[in-house]
Amino acid sequence: MNGEHWLYIMIDLPVDKKKWVHWMRRSIQLALLAENRTSPNPLVGAVVLDSSGRLVGEGFHTGAGNAHAEIEALAQAGEKSVNGTIVVTLEPCCHHGLTPPCTEALIKARLKRVVIGMVDPDPRVSGNGISRLKDSGLEVVEGVLNQECKRINREFIFRVRNGRPWGILKWAMSLDGRIGLPNGISKWITNESSRDSVHQIRAKCDAVIIGGGTLRSDNPLLTSRGKSELEPLRVVFSRSLELPKSANLWNTKTAKTLIAYGPEGNESFFFDLPDGPEKLSLDSNDPSELLTELGKKGCNKILWECGPLLATSAIEAKCVQELVVFIAPKLLGGRSAMSPLDSFGFESINSTYKLQHSFLDRKGKDLCWRLLL
Amino acid sequence: MNGEHWLYIMIDLPVDKKKWVHWMRRSIQLALLAENRTSPNPLVGAVVLDSSGRLVGEGFHTGAGNAHAEIEALAQAGEKSVNGTIVVTLEPCCHHGLTPPCTEALIKARLKRVVIGMVDPDPRVSGNGISRLKDSGLEVVEGVLNQECKRINREFIFRVRNGRPWGILKWAMSLDGRIGLPNGISKWITNESSRDSVHQIRAKCDAVIIGGGTLRSDNPLLTSRGKSELEPLRVVFSRSLELPKSANLWNTKTAKTLIAYGPEGNESFFFDLPDGPEKLSLDSNDPSELLTELGKKGCNKILWECGPLLATSAIEAKCVQELVVFIAPKLLGGRSAMSPLDSFGFESINSTYKLQHSFLDRKGKDLCWRLLL
Repeated sequence: MNGEHWLYIMIDLPVDKKKWVHWMRRSIQLALLAENRTSPNPLVGAVVLDSSGRLVGEGFHTGAGNAHAEIEALAQAGEKSVNGTIVVTLEPCCHHGLTPPCTEALIKARLKRVVIGMVDPDPRVSGNGISRLKDSGLEVVEGVLNQECKRINREFIFRVRNGRPWGILKWAMSLDGRIGLPNGISKWITNESSRDSVHQIRAKCDAVIIGGGTLRSDNPLLTSRGKSELEPLRVVFSRSLELPKSANLWNTKTAKTLIAYGPEGNESFFFDLPDGPEKLSLDSNDPSELLTELGKKGCNKILWECGPLLATSAIEAKCVQELVVFIAPKLLGGRSAMSPLDSFGFESINSTYKLQHSFLDRKGKDLCWRLLL
Repeated sequence: MNGEHWLYIMIDLPVDKKKWVHWMRRSIQLALLAENRTSPNPLVGAVVLDSSGRLVGEGFHTGAGNAHAEIEALAQAGEKSVNGTIVVTLEPCCHHGLTPPCTEALIKARLKRVVIGMVDPDPRVSGNGISRLKDSGLEVVEGVLNQECKRINREFIFRVRNGRPWGILKWAMSLDGRIGLPNGISKWITNESSRDSVHQIRAKCDAVIIGGGTLRSDNPLLTSRGKSELEPLRVVFSRSLELPKSANLWNTKTAKTLIAYGPEGNESFFFDLPDGPEKLSLDSNDPSELLTELGKKGCNKILWECGPLLATSAIEAKCVQELVVFIAPKLLGGRSAMSPLDSFGFESINSTYKLQHSFLDRKGKDLCWRLLL
């Protein structure tokens, strides 16, 4: 959330909700402590206040399979939760997932009140948690810092609603819009600070996707260079499986690799391939089929680091929600190719893609422009 | 100078020069009042202080043929200049140009001291003015706010030293580096605020240059839309003279037009052309020959608003010193052409053009990036 943490002014919030804003901010802070470590789960933070409003417990969800934020906070509070209040960023769950339902723990802790930032978009919960609490006689205050609570889980919410992860497309280009020289050379258009930012973005993603062309020309590592405890899954999305026998990605000691391929993929490629990379056969070359599979694997957020053809097809398949473009103050020139995107077939400027909510940053002499598609 | 006025900290300035910084700043302010109206002359401002250091006269050069700044300031001061000081941004001239030499007027005004920002790069002056003043017994203090005085006349100095005007290349592109759709449509990639900025840049230039291709495809007006008292000269630089018989540029009521053409130009084109546009036959298609001719015509600063081929050739001929790139948050796509620049034949990233001193501005949702080449 660095630099892009948006503050919402709570002008229209009723007084009974305003009094919880302070504690909800604290819960959001707690939730963010686990940023990028909870997929496929959301970020959740919670504080418990005793009957006189004093802080007696704090907690946050540290990752799938671990205790939920409410349980952590209640454990700290112990008996002091009786007649108290829990302030939690997300509606408590009422279903048995990897852990038991939180609603039952809240009821058992004999809390008086539950303050909630946002309703859980997960259809197994989505209001049912709130109903269960109300039915058990707890006071429920909803929608406190609702926008902020949604913002920290933008990618989780997107994945739950759409069945596939939030897609970020990144490219690095010169001032004249070139991602490489006509001879294919692109190392390095952008400076060290920009490339470091790319590693940071990778660290915040669950998977990084390239096409066969990028693998053949760049032989990339695609890791966060240790900026994340768990390196993102490295995905090669290939139509033909005409891939090199030797590649950095086939070494899966530091990070996992997935080779995804469409119906035309020549599986004989796998005969000589070392063990390590996982294989995924798809029914089509549609990027959204790949992303649906990655969603099932628990990816909330993925990064496209591919060439113009795959990038264009990912945009057209609505598999890109966010763009991160690095622009270096260099002029490369070049008559053809080596542009970030291929043709969309647009006939007028009105029909082109317009980007929103842009956030601009300097990386040394380079620019980094983030936008929503 | 809006937004790009750079302040220099005078850490190393000796005390005897520091005391004049305040008045030199005022002289610079005065000089800037005539911004973009003095070509081919420089901007010059001057203040006259009486023998006890009180301000008794101010002046600035308002345009070629009009009085120089020193003469204006001395006229205000009258008899009070005796034993006084004149603080002037540029070395006083010592030659007969359109007006008599300023050195003689300074001597006649019986000043005690002359404080000068920068030496005149014009070889007819360049130190001779200072010598003449010293020889006549006046105290001369040189180099006060030297960098700032040079900055306000960057384009004049460049033209005097290189024999051709300072060149600015402007283009407007989408986030994916496209200056138009594959079908040629480019209206409008950037927003109204960006286009308004282009008119402002034109207002600050002595000429605007396009190639035949841009004339044929866009039929532009190329005016500042009244943002300048004197519209810039509109130049079409055509190899072949295969130009349309009807074009906005052939109407020279609001702004002058110059048709420049190389040795292959088919002059029969001129037979049916209405009077109005001026013709300029060149010995080559080299952009630097055109710029040398424009320098002779008194242009200090010109704007390239051309397509990729001419832009690339202008850069290669060192006829571009500054870039102004507008970037709109849109995705246009496109397989070929419609990129800002053509090929330079670079084989490695190290050999590409690197730009310096960048200045970034937002124009609504668009970006405007200005850099030096």
